[in-house]
Amino acid sequence: MIKVGIIGATGYTGVELLRLLAPRTDVEISVVTSRELMGTDVHSRFPNLRGHVDLQFSPADSELLNQCDVVFYATPHAVAMNSVAGLLSNGVRVIDLSADFRIQNIPLWEQWYNTQHVCPDLVATAVYGLPEVNREAIKTAQLIAVPGCYPTAIQLGFLPLLENGLVQSSRLIADAKSGVSGAGRKAVEDYLLCEATESIRAYGISGHRHHPEICESLNRYSETEIKLTFIPHLTPMIRGILATLYAPVKSGVEVSIAQLQDVFEQRYANEPFVDVLPQGEVPATRNVKGSNKCQVSVAYSADTDTVVVLSAEDNLVKGAAGQAIQNMNIMFGLEETTGLQNIALLP
Amino acid sequence: MIKVGIIGATGYTGVELLRLLAPRTDVEISVVTSRELMGTDVHSRFPNLRGHVDLQFSPADSELLNQCDVVFYATPHAVAMNSVAGLLSNGVRVIDLSADFRIQNIPLWEQWYNTQHVCPDLVATAVYGLPEVNREAIKTAQLIAVPGCYPTAIQLGFLPLLENGLVQSSRLIADAKSGVSGAGRKAVEDYLLCEATESIRAYGISGHRHHPEICESLNRYSETEIKLTFIPHLTPMIRGILATLYAPVKSGVEVSIAQLQDVFEQRYANEPFVDVLPQGEVPATRNVKGSNKCQVSVAYSADTDTVVVLSAEDNLVKGAAGQAIQNMNIMFGLEETTGLQNIALLP
Amino acid sequence: MIKVGIIGATGYTGVELLRLLAPRTDVEISVVTSRELMGTDVHSRFPNLRGHVDLQFSPADSELLNQCDVVFYATPHAVAMNSVAGLLSNGVRVIDLSADFRIQNIPLWEQWYNTQHVCPDLVATAVYGLPEVNREAIKTAQLIAVPGCYPTAIQLGFLPLLENGLVQSSRLIADAKSGVSGAGRKAVEDYLLCEATESIRAYGISGHRHHPEICESLNRYSETEIKLTFIPHLTPMIRGILATLYAPVKSGVEVSIAQLQDVFEQRYANEPFVDVLPQGEVPATRNVKGSNKCQVSVAYSADTDTVVVLSAEDNLVKGAAGQAIQNMNIMFGLEETTGLQNIALLP
Amino acid sequence: MIKVGIIGATGYTGVELLRLLAPRTDVEISVVTSRELMGTDVHSRFPNLRGHVDLQFSPADSELLNQCDVVFYATPHAVAMNSVAGLLSNGVRVIDLSADFRIQNIPLWEQWYNTQHVCPDLVATAVYGLPEVNREAIKTAQLIAVPGCYPTAIQLGFLPLLENGLVQSSRLIADAKSGVSGAGRKAVEDYLLCEATESIRAYGISGHRHHPEICESLNRYSETEIKLTFIPHLTPMIRGILATLYAPVKSGVEVSIAQLQDVFEQRYANEPFVDVLPQGEVPATRNVKGSNKCQVSVAYSADTDTVVVLSAEDNLVKGAAGQAIQNMNIMFGLEETTGLQNIALLP
Repeated sequence: MIKVGIIGATGYTGVELLRLLAPRTDVEISVVTSRELMGTDVHSRFPNLRGHVDLQFSPADSELLNQCDVVFYATPHAVAMNSVAGLLSNGVRVIDLSADFRIQNIPLWEQWYNTQHVCPDLVATAVYGLPEVNREAIKTAQLIAVPGCYPTAIQLGFLPLLENGLVQSSRLIADAKSGVSGAGRKAVEDYLLCEATESIRAYGISGHRHHPEICESLNRYSETEIKLTFIPHLTPMIRGILATLYAPVKSGVEVSIAQLQDVFEQRYANEPFVDVLPQGEVPATRNVKGSNKCQVSVAYSADTDTVVVLSAEDNLVKGAAGQAIQNMNIMFGLEETTGLQNIALLP
Repeated sequence: MIKVGIIGATGYTGVELLRLLAPRTDVEISVVTSRELMGTDVHSRFPNLRGHVDLQFSPADSELLNQCDVVFYATPHAVAMNSVAGLLSNGVRVIDLSADFRIQNIPLWEQWYNTQHVCPDLVATAVYGLPEVNREAIKTAQLIAVPGCYPTAIQLGFLPLLENGLVQSSRLIADAKSGVSGAGRKAVEDYLLCEATESIRAYGISGHRHHPEICESLNRYSETEIKLTFIPHLTPMIRGILATLYAPVKSGVEVSIAQLQDVFEQRYANEPFVDVLPQGEVPATRNVKGSNKCQVSVAYSADTDTVVVLSAEDNLVKGAAGQAIQNMNIMFGLEETTGLQNIALLP
Repeated sequence: MIKVGIIGATGYTGVELLRLLAPRTDVEISVVTSRELMGTDVHSRFPNLRGHVDLQFSPADSELLNQCDVVFYATPHAVAMNSVAGLLSNGVRVIDLSADFRIQNIPLWEQWYNTQHVCPDLVATAVYGLPEVNREAIKTAQLIAVPGCYPTAIQLGFLPLLENGLVQSSRLIADAKSGVSGAGRKAVEDYLLCEATESIRAYGISGHRHHPEICESLNRYSETEIKLTFIPHLTPMIRGILATLYAPVKSGVEVSIAQLQDVFEQRYANEPFVDVLPQGEVPATRNVKGSNKCQVSVAYSADTDTVVVLSAEDNLVKGAAGQAIQNMNIMFGLEETTGLQNIALLP
Repeated sequence: MIKVGIIGATGYTGVELLRLLAPRTDVEISVVTSRELMGTDVHSRFPNLRGHVDLQFSPADSELLNQCDVVFYATPHAVAMNSVAGLLSNGVRVIDLSADFRIQNIPLWEQWYNTQHVCPDLVATAVYGLPEVNREAIKTAQLIAVPGCYPTAIQLGFLPLLENGLVQSSRLIADAKSGVSGAGRKAVEDYLLCEATESIRAYGISGHRHHPEICESLNRYSETEIKLTFIPHLTPMIRGILATLYAPVKSGVEVSIAQLQDVFEQRYANEPFVDVLPQGEVPATRNVKGSNKCQVSVAYSADTDTVVVLSAEDNLVKGAAGQAIQNMNIMFGLEETTGLQNIALLP
């Protein structure tokens, strides 16, 4: 029985962790913390958990956390970095869903998050929790930085192209569309139904915090330097990210659609949560709603000699809570798919 | 291992049956039929099933159906009645999600469905599959008529009041709001996104087919005759039914909110899928999205001496596929909640 | 040229007033105030007004207000009552879209709004701005209380029945469904897209502030006392209210559907903004989106001897800004429909 | 008084033409045709037109068409080409909202529309109705081909860059997001609310009919050949197109954001319906819902030396009916903005 703690479980990644962990018989949810809601029933915050989770929120510094086997942080950035060291020193493994340990380049992190990092040494020990590239390191990791939602969808789309040196790494474009849940459960005017539904718009044009994370990670798998134009869009739906990726074919390289399809299928042949679609089919975010799957398809525009990749995930599952649990499964030597086999809710 | 067949699994109740049954280790999906799609992959119709269901659609008269332990009909009305007899005579138990066996009054059924019933004798043997009132009969039933989506939500709301003789049964009002999936996956103009979203309207003002079903069923639990005004509304969302029920208190009866709360809590104390909310809380369809739960709350308007009940369910789960499987579990002596414990997807 | 001021024009009724008034050649928008946004461009708050409204927000106490012919209050409750007297004494006519002058019974108002009223004397002089019943009084009014969004839809539905003494006034039910814009443009968690879309729920079960307003107003037109069960519902859409009204026929009265239809058609024959639909058609909120129309239909459930009325409006137009302007037109002797003839946006 | 006919006014562009034309005092809607609905009231098809349009649908070959000053075709492709010649020979000017006259390269048209063109000679005389580039030719045109919805948004975004030779014309990318109304009011399963809401997906990956139209048109304004990757996306909303455009800066050219902003502002300084947003602001489709405006913003990604343009319009107005009427105004010597000044409906 794995004893689990969740810190800051009052938002959408929090409820997803609980939805996915509560039914498991090999996991015990020991403690769920919230600064603001301590003492209240977890299911009063999330009525879908009535009858499934009977805990109350504990204070943020609950001593129970130290008795856990693993603790998930579902907090905003710059929270986890303040208390991770204590947990690790008590032998508690940590899976951080926030941004605190995602970027190895500390000055870059500090610039984008406008905060001084309090434990740069720990960042160096953190494992970037994208199982499709880091599975071995995850097994023994004490501290996991779960990738952001955009970075997951975008990396899974570009990886086969970069690993095989097929495209110009300096001319990448990621046009990404995210549901509103990516903004979290915060009372902010922009995300009111009346502001966000029946409309689409870009945001973060001058720069988005996931940009340096994506570039740093992709650079590990590319021989040439990554340069990326990344434009995220707020899309009128709750869940889902669709990343439409454009990459010009590298000069001197010739590609065919059959070859591209083959490259993708081989790359992900053994990946339980990356589903390469048959040629001609395209992913839709509804196909993965509530599931840990990332659906990917590849196309080739001969006219412009450009590869177009489509990558769809549920931002709260493969883009957050599901991927975190996938990491946990790997860390504890469980079947990687345990508790993550639920089928997307369609329609 | 229970061998299961599904007839007509190309609509929304079909995909829900598959979503809920595919992960089970005690069930084998033997055959899935479709007149139009025979020979094609089931997951080409429902991409959320990729990697979970590897069957192809079989012809409607597949011989494999006769080798099943149980067959679900997910067909329009007036289909099941033509072939149920054959299956039953082969010892196959039948769970019909359509309307063919829901109404015992055959002339009434024929009037509302504008069709001659071909097997009225079988109707007499069918068990109305609402476990909260018919659990014992379901255990040994050969043929189950799964209640309609509106009838489930409305009956579960009225039952405690009628069984206890608290309200005037001749002045019931059910104002019900349904998501668009209740209309099925049919290419009909009225259900296009551009016609149905960002708007709400009533329909079936002159009469809805679920009206006689509700009245016939409620009459079994009421000493005085049921008269019901039932107004369904098309609501701009995919899933969910919220029934707002109004019942004037019976003349000479006095009620208090505490007593009403108590009546509801006692009635459903042992029901795994009916969740009576604490006083002051109200159900929302999002709280049960994808789950087999029906959330119910009761209130009392002293001014008009009227009881107001709110009842919310997922029309495709507790209102269709989930309830059908709940019946199957009871019929086969399994734990009633097997495979139906999944938590609602929120947000 | 009518000089107009708008106080508190940062919410949805504010932008609707501007949308409807800006194109008019007989109206000059002199001043638009906002405590928080003073000094900023109005169109930076409402990008749809770019090129149409070139004003900046003025301070709340702008001296320009006293130079207006008419001032609209688009403020929360308990704001207008503090400054209306000053404007009136300067000869400025006032149209208040908030609740401050809607209820003549001051103690009742104070109880529901949990505030002491600072100018009960002015309340006595205020005219309730529902043109369909108060047109004459509106012509000479100095102070208009624009009805709430629910009260407008509900009163227009019940009026023909009550004026003709056809129904039991003590057993009225109003089951109303409102889009989320009724909650205003406030950063409140409940109205986030992720909380409010793809779900429907009731609210205000223990009492809603529009209840006393509706009852007080309807009592003016009913010989017997009004008792009303009023259940509002938060509906997953931006705009629109659909009120489904239930009224038992008065004992000893006989009604037919033809007669009911006639009663409604005659009552509203000369009303430019109440559209009685032909028998068999039902209103939908999409049919009136952005327009000042209220669509009404009437039906009769013989089984339960109950009249069912459906009433649909755009809560921000006929339920707020449009109705306010309709009042202004009447007050200033203009054609009542001036500037309010725009056709609903469909789809 | 301009006598207007509308052919095939049963879809969404049809109702938009009627919404925009009906209030005008300088236009008389003489005849509205429909093959399927002839003889029925126009407002029974479009309830928003009740009280505004009192016509009935006429047969498709109504003689009244020949007495019009101008006839709009709101038909599917390959309809207009069969009857335009007759109207023109009677001196009736024609504004075709379909694709029949948009592409001068007849073999290319025939390939994409899989149809033989019956009047290639007329195509040569048709004027492409994008006023921002063709205003002079429109004035005297007898036959207008109104641009497609995607081509309008995309051309208005790329034009300033191409006319000034700033970008590599062979590496253009248009990632476009369209509301579902772009698919028309057709009973097709893919566009059901339950299929299209709460999801986003690309489509037309292997080629979209607007691609050759865009390229042919842009080539007129570019010194070097246009090559374009165009990926349209079905977005879960009714109205609106947002085109996110990517163009690498031409080798040897240096750009700055200030210069780009200036280029756009100068290009559209006198265009009433193209609104260049201030630096740092981005368009949203909600800002133009129901209006004839196209909002455009420009940004520069120094890292990848790429210009990013965002262009938003209402696909049914500036992308169809509004633009058609803008053409009519120009053709008949009216103020170009007549009847098109309505403000977007927000929220």
